[in-house]
Amino acid sequence: MLAARLSFSQGFPLSSYIRLALDAMGGDHGPKSVIPGAALALEARPDLRFTFFGDAKDIQPYLNEYPALMAASDVVHTDVAIASDDKPAAALRRGRQSSMRLAIDAAAEGRADCVVSAGNTGALMATAKLVFKCLQGIHRPAIASVLPSAKGRTVMLDLGANVQCDAENLVQFSILGACFARSVLKIERPTVGLLNIGSEDMKGHETLHEAAAVLQSAAFPGHFFGFVEGNDITAGTVDVVVTDGFTGNIALKTAEGVGRFITQVLKDELGASWLSKLGYALAAKAFKQAKKRFDHRVYNGGLFLGLNGICIKSHGSADAFAFSRAVLVAADMVTYGFNDLVAEQIEKLGIEPDFVSMPVPAVAEG
Amino acid sequence: MLAARLSFSQGFPLSSYIRLALDAMGGDHGPKSVIPGAALALEARPDLRFTFFGDAKDIQPYLNEYPALMAASDVVHTDVAIASDDKPAAALRRGRQSSMRLAIDAAAEGRADCVVSAGNTGALMATAKLVFKCLQGIHRPAIASVLPSAKGRTVMLDLGANVQCDAENLVQFSILGACFARSVLKIERPTVGLLNIGSEDMKGHETLHEAAAVLQSAAFPGHFFGFVEGNDITAGTVDVVVTDGFTGNIALKTAEGVGRFITQVLKDELGASWLSKLGYALAAKAFKQAKKRFDHRVYNGGLFLGLNGICIKSHGSADAFAFSRAVLVAADMVTYGFNDLVAEQIEKLGIEPDFVSMPVPAVAEG
Repeated sequence: MLAARLSFSQGFPLSSYIRLALDAMGGDHGPKSVIPGAALALEARPDLRFTFFGDAKDIQPYLNEYPALMAASDVVHTDVAIASDDKPAAALRRGRQSSMRLAIDAAAEGRADCVVSAGNTGALMATAKLVFKCLQGIHRPAIASVLPSAKGRTVMLDLGANVQCDAENLVQFSILGACFARSVLKIERPTVGLLNIGSEDMKGHETLHEAAAVLQSAAFPGHFFGFVEGNDITAGTVDVVVTDGFTGNIALKTAEGVGRFITQVLKDELGASWLSKLGYALAAKAFKQAKKRFDHRVYNGGLFLGLNGICIKSHGSADAFAFSRAVLVAADMVTYGFNDLVAEQIEKLGIEPDFVSMPVPAVAEG
Repeated sequence: MLAARLSFSQGFPLSSYIRLALDAMGGDHGPKSVIPGAALALEARPDLRFTFFGDAKDIQPYLNEYPALMAASDVVHTDVAIASDDKPAAALRRGRQSSMRLAIDAAAEGRADCVVSAGNTGALMATAKLVFKCLQGIHRPAIASVLPSAKGRTVMLDLGANVQCDAENLVQFSILGACFARSVLKIERPTVGLLNIGSEDMKGHETLHEAAAVLQSAAFPGHFFGFVEGNDITAGTVDVVVTDGFTGNIALKTAEGVGRFITQVLKDELGASWLSKLGYALAAKAFKQAKKRFDHRVYNGGLFLGLNGICIKSHGSADAFAFSRAVLVAADMVTYGFNDLVAEQIEKLGIEPDFVSMPVPAVAEG
């Protein structure tokens, strides 16, 4: 866990606790990943305190195995859990007593500093949006993720919360991404690029050009690089890649697919003869190191940015290690005052808060 | 070349020649790739006949090295060539005597059956569209490519010709892709998927739902699978992936970027110790085989589908082998009557030709 501590949790103030509300029932594994994940996070950051929401009789057996965690935790029992295939609207209507909703309520009511859930993305986003509302000056929240790149890490958003985005949305996403890169990833002057189909000024949608025009002249917590292309995501050309939720989701899933395809072909070919099997065995450490650099678990955590609250969506299939990473990202967002930085930057940009005219955004589900 | 012959050129009729108009000056290497590429293609298909358009004094020295090719070729001299950074509008205005334009004119006027150029994509598409016009019932041409997938090959379109697409465009692209898979790739009943951010019916843009509704009930040269996601492109879930040119271009470039990133990391890690270097050496054949499966040269050729003429855009950096693949794809499209099949299927679909109201499409450049 040393690497984790160094990369994410250096220099946090130990003077106060960070209180996390965890949905213990979300994801494929529920408490089986959530409790050991929280225990791992606590090892890395002893200043964390947890409240687990969910079925106490499912949670307790796992908690019993981690005395240190037990001493740092509360359990709030509920029988209700959102299923992975529940529609967001149904989750909102029928999920008022669900582990997910209660965890979000706890954060909204000041009993916790942030929420982490591995549950249903659509339900989590819809509930978080309803309960937290958007930050002043942010019209729609976005889903961001930290991806491995040739130069280190790239923040990308939106990954599916908003199928269609206007120029203002893209400008706000740029600020959200830059604030995350600056506060949590400690990149002092993050570079931001708008995803387009060419780096020339004349290409792509009108929306992109409008957003670029604003970003070029705006007071901005970083540097606006201009347009970037699909290959720039992994090249690490910029620290923050901004796009609409449709394009972002497709780019992310395409990248995952290519990774899986290459892995499979390498496996097939390396297993095809005894000589290559031997070669693979000798180079095992190199493959392990390479795998580590692509390990999505290290970057686990869909960041819901732009809400008046900190909410992290862990991958549904997250194991304990991956879940611990999501917990640590949430804790870092609190520690480093992510939302305060956003508020400050939005004010500098001179965007008027417009809650009254805030459109009801479409939510990606599943 | 046996593999090439088997996969692309089986069973072609030797009774007549296929006449190709080649832009000898396009791409990074000009005649240096084009002439040896044509020679390779001629080895695979002795029924090909070539006309090279370009600077005779640049072409002739290369041609002299291939007597068989020389015997099967003409050269049409011109001093003018489109530069890789020429804007499409400028290429149209000032490029009437360019090697690219003359090659297209030759095909349009019946002196050749198809055109291949490695030149500037935007200029080639704009010129081909102006000269060939669209096929009856097709509102806009699309750029397609054949990509490697876990199950073999996937045709994907549009890759950048049309930044925005309506439902009719997507339906027509589906037909173009299916006709290509059927006629050239010999997939009898190709499956077609619309790229979306979820496979459920309720997700994504309205345009996608409209297109899906038509495809579900249309007489169709294949089977409409429904929505697919980014990871389905390389998984080979469907034979044909259809999307707008903005999303398609970003997905393609993202995939290329991930491939490059993984290759670089593997290289770094495998070179990091003598043991892994040894392992790599022993498994060299496996890596070579794997690389072959991803070799974009085998799939070289941006297919301009939907034009009243056959036009293939070779990658600008194509070497002789890659250029030969583009030539063979063009020849196959002629041999297997791709455009006739499209016309037949469009008629079955009952789409009215509407040249009068045909919008002037935006062209991606570069």
